[in-house]
Amino acid sequence: MKIKVGVNGYGTIGKRVAWAVMKQPDMELVGVVKRKPNWEVLSAVKKGIPVYTLEESVRDFERRGIDIEGTLDELLSKVDVIVDSTPGGVGKTYKEVYRKAEVKAIFQGGEKSDIAEVSFNSFVNYREALRKQFVRVVSCNTTGLVRIIHSLSEAGTIRKIRGVIVRRGADPKEIKKGPIDALILNPAKPPSHHTIDVKKVMGELDIITYAVVAPTTLAHLHYLLVEFKEPKNREEILKHISNNSRVVIVNGDLLKSTVEVRELAKDMGRPNGDVYENVIWEDSIWVNNKEVMLAYAVHQEAIVVPENIDAIRAVTGVIEDPQESIKITNNTLGIKGWI
Amino acid sequence: MKIKVGVNGYGTIGKRVAWAVMKQPDMELVGVVKRKPNWEVLSAVKKGIPVYTLEESVRDFERRGIDIEGTLDELLSKVDVIVDSTPGGVGKTYKEVYRKAEVKAIFQGGEKSDIAEVSFNSFVNYREALRKQFVRVVSCNTTGLVRIIHSLSEAGTIRKIRGVIVRRGADPKEIKKGPIDALILNPAKPPSHHTIDVKKVMGELDIITYAVVAPTTLAHLHYLLVEFKEPKNREEILKHISNNSRVVIVNGDLLKSTVEVRELAKDMGRPNGDVYENVIWEDSIWVNNKEVMLAYAVHQEAIVVPENIDAIRAVTGVIEDPQESIKITNNTLGIKGWI
Repeated sequence: MKIKVGVNGYGTIGKRVAWAVMKQPDMELVGVVKRKPNWEVLSAVKKGIPVYTLEESVRDFERRGIDIEGTLDELLSKVDVIVDSTPGGVGKTYKEVYRKAEVKAIFQGGEKSDIAEVSFNSFVNYREALRKQFVRVVSCNTTGLVRIIHSLSEAGTIRKIRGVIVRRGADPKEIKKGPIDALILNPAKPPSHHTIDVKKVMGELDIITYAVVAPTTLAHLHYLLVEFKEPKNREEILKHISNNSRVVIVNGDLLKSTVEVRELAKDMGRPNGDVYENVIWEDSIWVNNKEVMLAYAVHQEAIVVPENIDAIRAVTGVIEDPQESIKITNNTLGIKGWI
Repeated sequence: MKIKVGVNGYGTIGKRVAWAVMKQPDMELVGVVKRKPNWEVLSAVKKGIPVYTLEESVRDFERRGIDIEGTLDELLSKVDVIVDSTPGGVGKTYKEVYRKAEVKAIFQGGEKSDIAEVSFNSFVNYREALRKQFVRVVSCNTTGLVRIIHSLSEAGTIRKIRGVIVRRGADPKEIKKGPIDALILNPAKPPSHHTIDVKKVMGELDIITYAVVAPTTLAHLHYLLVEFKEPKNREEILKHISNNSRVVIVNGDLLKSTVEVRELAKDMGRPNGDVYENVIWEDSIWVNNKEVMLAYAVHQEAIVVPENIDAIRAVTGVIEDPQESIKITNNTLGIKGWI
């Protein structure tokens, strides 16, 4: 019996989650919900994905000549799990709908944490999410942070974390967003929301992050300073980071920028040039007694996709061991296999 | 007797230094040297600044109908100090020319530190530069760092400094430079050159900086973590930073980005929207026991201009007290008076 999955919202995250669901041996993509018949729906049509919409949008799709399989309510009657990838803050307006339909729902990091019982990361709290009705996969930057902090925490006791997150200003498709030429303090006053979200997943930590928005669309770049209770050496740190099955390691002599990472992903045939992994620069890792500093990139459009897939398994409870789910997800998405 | 000043190179820095020299009561701008008759020379012509060039370029200027006052050698015979603002790495090819002409020279941060006897900052080592023949004003980012570190060092003993410098990719006029859409690790492996340059000015310090290049032209943005030997409070830190006569303090509620800072500078009538000061966000200042974190902007085209003016006074020795020179420079350039 495959898990029957629907995806509400076929945008940046939703389409990628839908495509990833289609690759899972234990899942069936029943359909996706699209509110507006814009260009983005064309890939669903071409791929043969059943398209659902809201009651009030059916006519808009008909006018465009796009076949509609049914409404959101009809989709909900056919699925075990709905992945809510509607725009940030919109997910909460659907929560009651999902509850009434008795469907488990995965929300995204754009929703407030109280929308769900668990703010989720595959490596940290998969078991907490087992058989829950509502789970929230934290945002791209938080997912990136949590993976690295989790890996480092296996190298020893972390005393504190100080970070600067250089955020991409917009996704490539977001033609109305900026900035084109400015750096925006996001906000000036620390901590940025990532600090709070990391704690939602990992519990109490001495962490402060600053964020700055830059005019780029390709990826975020994080700089972290981590202080341990005991002295560390470079080899230990590198070993624990390498062990994370969703972190890839590159070298600054070869790949100097976020664009080279993304372009290489395209060259290697990754769908949409997607990078699901944290991309950490080996030569950025600086270890000095108890201090570790390092830099890594986070592809904002893709990094949460594997976490969404794992979250689907967790809420259904069909797989109880996080490592088992992570392994299937990684294998089907080709994680770490491309570089 | 005014100090007779020439400026070799009438580009981003050179033109601004020339204009600033014209405002000094104790200096006379004898002329500027321009190698190519491009658009940038037009402002010198319009402002009535005598234009000199290299022997081999005289014909190029004549063809454009631009009057040439003479050659570099002729300018050197008339000045006490030449400010070398030729492109990074080119300054060293002129050092022997300046030496033979027995002219004191101020180089820029694009030259290696061994070009000069002193790597200069007005607040830190003005007296060391007194009557020296060759002085180097450190780069924009290093000048920004040194001012803040110097101010903080007056609040207590600094144990260590960790920083992330988000660099502007190019100046607005640099139409052949990038990136347009990427973040470049500059380099991946720490420290960035700023670490080394700060030590050239300030002596041994436990400092590590990372740098990342972003697609923006308006300003750099620095994030610093400074650890003191003793606990600090916010008021002390703010007081010492405010005391620096080349630091202005803004609030993130009002000014959220580098573009707002630069646009306001234009609105206030600053020439070219220039910001000579470090612009520090008050709300970015986070103090936790011995730790201080903060963020500030550095306008790359302008921040070294006042330091160049002070360096001219230092090498001639006409003013021995740094504060006296800083005061004249600040008053004539309207520093801190605009915001």
